Amino acid sequence: MSLESLLQQARRPLVLGHIAPDGDSIGSLLGLGWAMKEMGKWPTLACADPVPEGLQFLPGAAEIVSRRRGDEDLIVALDSSDLLRLGSLFDEALFAQLPVVNIDHHITNVRFGSEQLIEPAAVSTTQIVYALLRRLGWPLSPWSATCLLTGLITDTRSFRTPNTDAEALRVAVALVEAGAPISEINERLDHGMSLGVVMLWGRVLSQAKMKDGIIWAEVSRELQRECGVSGSDAAGLVSFIAGVREARIAVMFTEKPDGRVEVGIRSVPGVDVSTVALGLGGGGHRQAAGCTLPGPLEAARDTVLARLAQVLQPPPGPPKPSGDRHVDTKSLSVPSQ
Amino acid sequence: MSLESLLQQARRPLVLGHIAPDGDSIGSLLGLGWAMKEMGKWPTLACADPVPEGLQFLPGAAEIVSRRRGDEDLIVALDSSDLLRLGSLFDEALFAQLPVVNIDHHITNVRFGSEQLIEPAAVSTTQIVYALLRRLGWPLSPWSATCLLTGLITDTRSFRTPNTDAEALRVAVALVEAGAPISEINERLDHGMSLGVVMLWGRVLSQAKMKDGIIWAEVSRELQRECGVSGSDAAGLVSFIAGVREARIAVMFTEKPDGRVEVGIRSVPGVDVSTVALGLGGGGHRQAAGCTLPGPLEAARDTVLARLAQVLQPPPGPPKPSGDRHVDTKSLSVPSQ
Repeated sequence: MSLESLLQQARRPLVLGHIAPDGDSIGSLLGLGWAMKEMGKWPTLACADPVPEGLQFLPGAAEIVSRRRGDEDLIVALDSSDLLRLGSLFDEALFAQLPVVNIDHHITNVRFGSEQLIEPAAVSTTQIVYALLRRLGWPLSPWSATCLLTGLITDTRSFRTPNTDAEALRVAVALVEAGAPISEINERLDHGMSLGVVMLWGRVLSQAKMKDGIIWAEVSRELQRECGVSGSDAAGLVSFIAGVREARIAVMFTEKPDGRVEVGIRSVPGVDVSTVALGLGGGGHRQAAGCTLPGPLEAARDTVLARLAQVLQPPPGPPKPSGDRHVDTKSLSVPSQ
Repeated sequence: MSLESLLQQARRPLVLGHIAPDGDSIGSLLGLGWAMKEMGKWPTLACADPVPEGLQFLPGAAEIVSRRRGDEDLIVALDSSDLLRLGSLFDEALFAQLPVVNIDHHITNVRFGSEQLIEPAAVSTTQIVYALLRRLGWPLSPWSATCLLTGLITDTRSFRTPNTDAEALRVAVALVEAGAPISEINERLDHGMSLGVVMLWGRVLSQAKMKDGIIWAEVSRELQRECGVSGSDAAGLVSFIAGVREARIAVMFTEKPDGRVEVGIRSVPGVDVSTVALGLGGGGHRQAAGCTLPGPLEAARDTVLARLAQVLQPPPGPPKPSGDRHVDTKSLSVPSQ
């Protein structure tokens, strides 16, 4: 049965986001969930980890549960490149019994499930869900549009990632036209920082280090304690240091409460860091990937930096060609008068 | 004569950006300039201050001059709320002699000139220029689109300012479709930071202070020297600290080489800081304004903080109503099943 038919026929779908959920995970979960409700279905919207405080403004966020109900007839996994990303919600027996729909935009998706909708060119899983809703002819309520636009904004760092294209902007226009309040969403996403996070950024950036094209910084548990924040408050730091001109790769090491180390990696176009993340049990995209390693911090740092240095070893290929409609701004000059 | 006719008939227009030029100033200058050239005109594109390094990638940037040629037949001032913003390019005799077109999106624009096109609802002056080019039926080349999109991106902090709406996104789509390479533009804008700027952010944020709803930080000349950066590298800091949940107003004080202090102010919707900036000889928008004060840093800080405290004195009015199509996410909840 096709993916569309599976979704059409399901009455009680179990819709799953990934562990350590971000805006795209929660946004696609709720965006699809709202549409299912409007179609008369009774979805269970579930995530093994709690919804982060900064995303609890999303309509329906309070209804997300951490366990399944038990009477579901379809499983839909969202934004999850493998089954481990589902955390405690992955139940081998249940997954063998029910059809499993796998919707994701990560290039490292292992293509689990009975039906897959994997589109690495999409900037977010919410973009795929938007197109799916249109194909299915399902309604797009302001609630759904709000959640879908949030995933689009968070996964593109507000339309700044290299994969942002006209199509991503077109989807944003359609979602705003459908009632997603973009300025309120941005206000909620941007204005939720504690003073401790400012202190954390200050302390972390003051100690950033750079060597041979790699810039990195660390967020120890001690620092988190001193600033009164948690590791998840360090989000955004890796993209920021990736903006350094001389950096080809940027890495952030964040100690988790249990001592393991979360590693966030970014790279310039032409440098693929997804393979390193994948090799260390993680995943992601070519220019944005991550993994979690055992501590201590120093050991994780040394391992990752050594592997990333190898990525930069072979002389890099030419930069990726621009699309035909695009101009190469380097070669542009005003014709003489 | 109408503004459109003035532009149509001009053969040698003098097009002016403002001092301390930003992406919107340079973007609108070059975006309009390219279209004029394609219409067979011979514009002089001028700015009293040099184009910042981070914007020199824009096609035509090297052709921007700091003095007029002398044979011009029309003056077009862009993104400049008053004549002082034109710096040394304001020439009283010349401005009395030639027609002056004033195109801007600042609410504080004093409406100088013979014809005005002031649209405070536009997110950038480049958005106004885009619509103007369409009305005039002038061509929109990839070069022009690149410059116009850059102004749109920089003035909205990549579609994150509260005034960002569907129309701004629609213009972005049109500019990308016209050939503006959005990912290359973002790469140039985001990947131009020196390691010193990371250090500057670290040092400045570590020392940020907050009191009674106002968060502020300072960038002294000493700190700039220690980090090997200039005051213009502090751009972005004020928007960042404005993200603190408890802050209703954010202020950044940056010492200039001559000892004067540049003041950047941001506020939450409902708090108007443009009047304070205007009262101190500056200008801007309700939620984003600025001014330049005599030093020393401490005196400027005390003056500005005292005036801003008064803005927060009267109990604030209710938050601005959302558009009709918009949902109030605070009141949304999933209907019980």
